This record gives sequence, C-alpha cells and structure tokens, in this order.
Amino acid sequence: MKPLIGRETRLCMSLSARPGNFGTRFHNRLYEATGLDFVYKSFSTTDLPAAIGGIRALNVRGCAISMPFKEAVIALLDGLAPSAAAIDSVNTIVNDDGVLTGHNTDYGAVVDLVADLDRTMPFVLRGSGGMARAVAAALHDSGFANGTIVARNEEAGRALADLYGYRWSAEPGEAAPLLVNVTPLGMTGADEAALAFPGEMIARCEVAFDVVQYPPETPFLRAAAEAGKRRITGTEVATLQALQQFVLYTGVTPSAAQVEEAAAFARANP
Amino acid sequence: MKPLIGRETRLCMSLSARPGNFGTRFHNRLYEATGLDFVYKSFSTTDLPAAIGGIRALNVRGCAISMPFKEAVIALLDGLAPSAAAIDSVNTIVNDDGVLTGHNTDYGAVVDLVADLDRTMPFVLRGSGGMARAVAAALHDSGFANGTIVARNEEAGRALADLYGYRWSAEPGEAAPLLVNVTPLGMTGADEAALAFPGEMIARCEVAFDVVQYPPETPFLRAAAEAGKRRITGTEVATLQALQQFVLYTGVTPSAAQVEEAAAFARANP
Repeated sequence: MKPLIGRETRLCMSLSARPGNFGTRFHNRLYEATGLDFVYKSFSTTDLPAAIGGIRALNVRGCAISMPFKEAVIALLDGLAPSAAAIDSVNTIVNDDGVLTGHNTDYGAVVDLVADLDRTMPFVLRGSGGMARAVAAALHDSGFANGTIVARNEEAGRALADLYGYRWSAEPGEAAPLLVNVTPLGMTGADEAALAFPGEMIARCEVAFDVVQYPPETPFLRAAAEAGKRRITGTEVATLQALQQFVLYTGVTPSAAQVEEAAAFARANP
Repeated sequence: MKPLIGRETRLCMSLSARPGNFGTRFHNRLYEATGLDFVYKSFSTTDLPAAIGGIRALNVRGCAISMPFKEAVIALLDGLAPSAAAIDSVNTIVNDDGVLTGHNTDYGAVVDLVADLDRTMPFVLRGSGGMARAVAAALHDSGFANGTIVARNEEAGRALADLYGYRWSAEPGEAAPLLVNVTPLGMTGADEAALAFPGEMIARCEVAFDVVQYPPETPFLRAAAEAGKRRITGTEVATLQALQQFVLYTGVTPSAAQVEEAAAFARANP
C-alpha cells in the first residue's frame, strides 16, 4: 500500500557521479511493502557542498553517498558514527533535523556477512580503495588477524595493511582459505572478463567473497561456484548495506521476506 | 502509465513555509496521465539560499515558490521572465541546467481567466500583497484601466494603485461590476466566516472573482452564486497556474480532460 506523495512524505536520496538504480528500486519497493510515507530518488552533482546544503535546507532524511564523494563529504557533516570514523569513508548520511551524521553501512554489511566464518582463516584481500578500507576494517574488527592486502598501489596497500597488522603484496600469489575481491576486476565494463584471483588460488580456497555488484556473477564467483566453494556475493553486500540504510532512515526493520522480494525486484529492474 | 522512479526521473518541487498538497497531487497525477518520467514533492525550509543552492546542485527541474519566499528568492536567481519582472514576485523557478529563471504563473493564470471579460468594466480589487500585485498587473496588462485598490495598509495600497493609475481606498464602498478578492477574507482559518465585500456591492456586481483556494467556496463566492453572478474561483486560478508550471517544466501541454481530471483528483485528496 503506497501512500500518495504529500506534504508529510520524507525524501531519501543518493549522490554519486553515476547513479545506478539498485538503491532507488530497493528502497521504494520496501517503502511500499511496509506502508511507509517515504520516497527515494537518486541524484548526481558537480557541487557537493551545495548538494549537502540542500539536504539540510530541505530536511532530506537520508542520503547514500557513492563514488567519488565518500571521503570529501566528511568535512561537510556534523559527526561520524563509529562505522565511518574507523575508515574515514561515509556511504550514508542520516539527517536528524539538520544534524548530519555519516555512517558506513558497507562496513556493517561485511561484518554481518562474515559473522559465521572461522575467524582464524587467513585471508587475501585484493584492493586498497575506500571500499577495500571498509572491508578490511570489518574483517579486522570481526577478529580476522591473519591477512594479506594485495594492491598494485604500494603506498595505499601498505598503509591499509599496516593499519591492521596485515601483510602487503603487489600481486596475488600465496593461497589462503578466504579470498576477497574489492577491485573492479570482473565488473561490467573494461574489466568484466578479468578473473580477480588466479585459478590455482580459487581452487585452494574455502570461501570466495566478491564485492562487485554488477554483474551478479563475476568470473571469480563463477569459478568458485564451479569448484564448489562457498560464496559471498556483491549482491549480498549491496542488499545488506541498503537494508542497514533503510533501518537508519526509517527506524523500521522489514521482514526477511520483504527484503528478499525488494532485492529481487531491484535486480530485475536495473 | 507511471514509470518507476529511477536515475532518469526529474524532480520538481515546491518551497513554502506551510506546504499544501494541491500542487503535489496535481503534478504527480498529470505525470502519470501523460507518462512523463517526473516526480513532484513539496518542501518547507528555514534556509532559502541553501534550498535554492540545492535546486542547482541536484538539478531539480522546477520549483514552485509560495509564501513567504516570493520576493526574497529573486536575488538568488539568474534572471526573471517578464511575468515575474513586472511585479517583482516569483512563484515558479525553471532550472535549465543550472540557470534559474523566475516566472509568475499566477499572473499568467489571471490574464487567461479575465481574457473574455469586458475590459471597460471598472473593478475593485481588495488586497495589496504579492498575489494582489500579480492580479493587478494582470488586470492592467489585460486592458482594465478603471480600478480601485482597497487596502487597509495605505502605503502598500497606494503604491500598487499608483503603479497602474488606479485609485486607492482603505475600505470597500463604491460599487463596481468586477469585484476581486485577493485577501485571506473567507479563507479556511481565522477569517473563514468573513465576507470579502459587503452584500450590497455583491448584489450590484457582474463578476465575482475570489483568489482564495481553500475553501473552494468562500462566503463571497457563495453570496455571488446565490445572487446569480458570474464567478471566477480560486480553484480556477490554482489549477491554471499549476498547469502553466507543468508546461514550463515539462514542455508538454496536457489535454483539457487530463487537466480537469488531475485538478479534481487534487481537490479530492487535499
């Protein structure tokens, strides 16, 4: 039951250089399923300070923040939740009557997704950008002490590894039971045929975790499936982080069935 | 056929201290009827410059401006259309990729509504605020040369009268064939029982024109109906000015039947 948009309707939104439709479909579908008087709309901008000023002035309830604004937005907020402060990266703004707080629901989503893994497993994480920081922090805070950060960018890779006492390597090599891809390798576009880890490493791992959202099945995840490995997918990360945003914005926790239906709807209407 | 909200959807909005729902219902209903990928949402704000900055930064396509922002917004725009420049009052912003132009569709609506009246008729217009300026300008530019502005505020009333060569009076008195109410007299709230003009003036008029939108039938309009007078109503003004906004924002002119249906829907869902 979707209420008509009216004076009481709250707006939630996203800001990114190139908006996708997953969040818009997911949130609007869940508003409808739960009967909440909210509407969700994606925006891009070339003037981040004015866009954030608009969020304050129009009392927009919440805003998802994507590339390339996740770090730059911090200076425009009133405070950071621990999830964002730990990694200096914000993917979610909650607006409490003009007080803007930055959160990072990617971090929270990864914490949830690795909750039932054996924390003694060594892992190899490929990537060193903002999302890689979120995933590494989530692994560290979840108790994964034995890890290698693989990144061609030595400065960023070493910095991330040193932060949590992990090793750094320029290229993947050594096998590990948990493989995590946080690069665009396998993503729709120039890198879509790329395999994030060598076949030999995939063959020897136990869990294959890819944060790439599109396509839902990357070459890495396909190879892992063919080898019978447990998988954690970018779709799961995207859904769970969007769900955490939904709860932060609305205070309402939808049922698992509602979440699954909304995620399926979002995937079917890209 | 309403498209799902997505990355291509354009936002139009309104800014006022106390938003109503007429514009939201009207525009969203017409977007649906015409299959346009737009969504409309009302906002209030206490920070007009930041709100207008947000309209630029988020590339909001259009914005209706209501009390108390119709004059203050002018300094924040890039230019004025003749409809707004003539009266220094903006009720509509059109955003062409960051270039904000102020319009006044109340003016245009009144021009249209008096188009088939006899312009030699003397009129009495009660009011001296922003909307009264729009109506007086529309009457003047339509060729109504013989008019009296009735306003207790002598300074504003005289200024408006002098601008167009009309007379000023503190209270209504002299009869005229065209009576125009542009005050809150008869409006829902403290003044809803008030009759905008004395019964004797109503009895002697030919046309009763009330810009009050709520209630749709004010004591003035009811008295005019009982006396068998021709009426021009606030509902007609609201509908016509919103239609002119719709055309400015979308470039699409809906059919008369679509407009009537959307206006009826808006009235039925206040």
